[in-house]
Amino acid sequence: MATAIQHHYPESLAYCYGCGRMNQKGLQLQSFREGDDVVARFNPRPEHIALPGFVYGGLLASLIDCHAMATAAAEAMRTAGREIGDGEAPRYVTAALHVDYLRPTPLGAELTLRARVAESGRRKLIVKVTVTAGESETARGEVIAVPMPESMERR
Amino acid sequence: MATAIQHHYPESLAYCYGCGRMNQKGLQLQSFREGDDVVARFNPRPEHIALPGFVYGGLLASLIDCHAMATAAAEAMRTAGREIGDGEAPRYVTAALHVDYLRPTPLGAELTLRARVAESGRRKLIVKVTVTAGESETARGEVIAVPMPESMERR
Repeated sequence: MATAIQHHYPESLAYCYGCGRMNQKGLQLQSFREGDDVVARFNPRPEHIALPGFVYGGLLASLIDCHAMATAAAEAMRTAGREIGDGEAPRYVTAALHVDYLRPTPLGAELTLRARVAESGRRKLIVKVTVTAGESETARGEVIAVPMPESMERR
Repeated sequence: MATAIQHHYPESLAYCYGCGRMNQKGLQLQSFREGDDVVARFNPRPEHIALPGFVYGGLLASLIDCHAMATAAAEAMRTAGREIGDGEAPRYVTAALHVDYLRPTPLGAELTLRARVAESGRRKLIVKVTVTAGESETARGEVIAVPMPESMERR
């Protein structure tokens, strides 16, 4: 049974509001490798709306952000010849986030985030993410991920 | 006493997770005109972290998003010769959101969002936003706002 990439973040770094398994009040997004893609599914809560009936864009930006960081971690592991679950996953942080909202995202449909690394360097990775609600692609993201600076680690 | 721009959104359109006064579980961001700028202040909750001690980037993206929509609404009212509180504020939605994370945002400091309209057209506005934590500028946003399409209105 595959485990989420975020499941393998070090426990002290697993408190992210968007995807930390230790953050009981957070969204707890889980991202999984599926072939060359990294995929996550999420069901927005009733309060996650921009307008009645439509999902809040800030939630989509948050999900895209966390999903891209997991995708960067998975890519770094693959480059190092490691499988998900083969030791801890490295922690990336966001240098820049861009989201294009293509059309309103209806509340009620499960969201699917699908990501792929578009550019991979030692100092940064560029990750592209699509969001679909049911069959409809509603948003696209492009995220620049960089390895977490040591100054952010407070073990 | 000045009231927040979001206070003047029509009640049926005031359920946004980020800034809707009717969304009891949301962030309830409030944005105020201050001279040529629009300014909001926000204190993240303890769970709003990316890593222990640092504010979640998805929260910053959410605040930038809502603050930019309020700034667009204020600009549209000013163009029409209306003050904040002079009737309902128009509702904008986000076409695109870009955030540059300049440095980690420490948890514990009040955040200040400061926005200005960079380009103003009939079909879209471009809003620039800065985020400061205490004295330190930690993020910058650029947001494209468009008038809410009628198809999103469910009164």
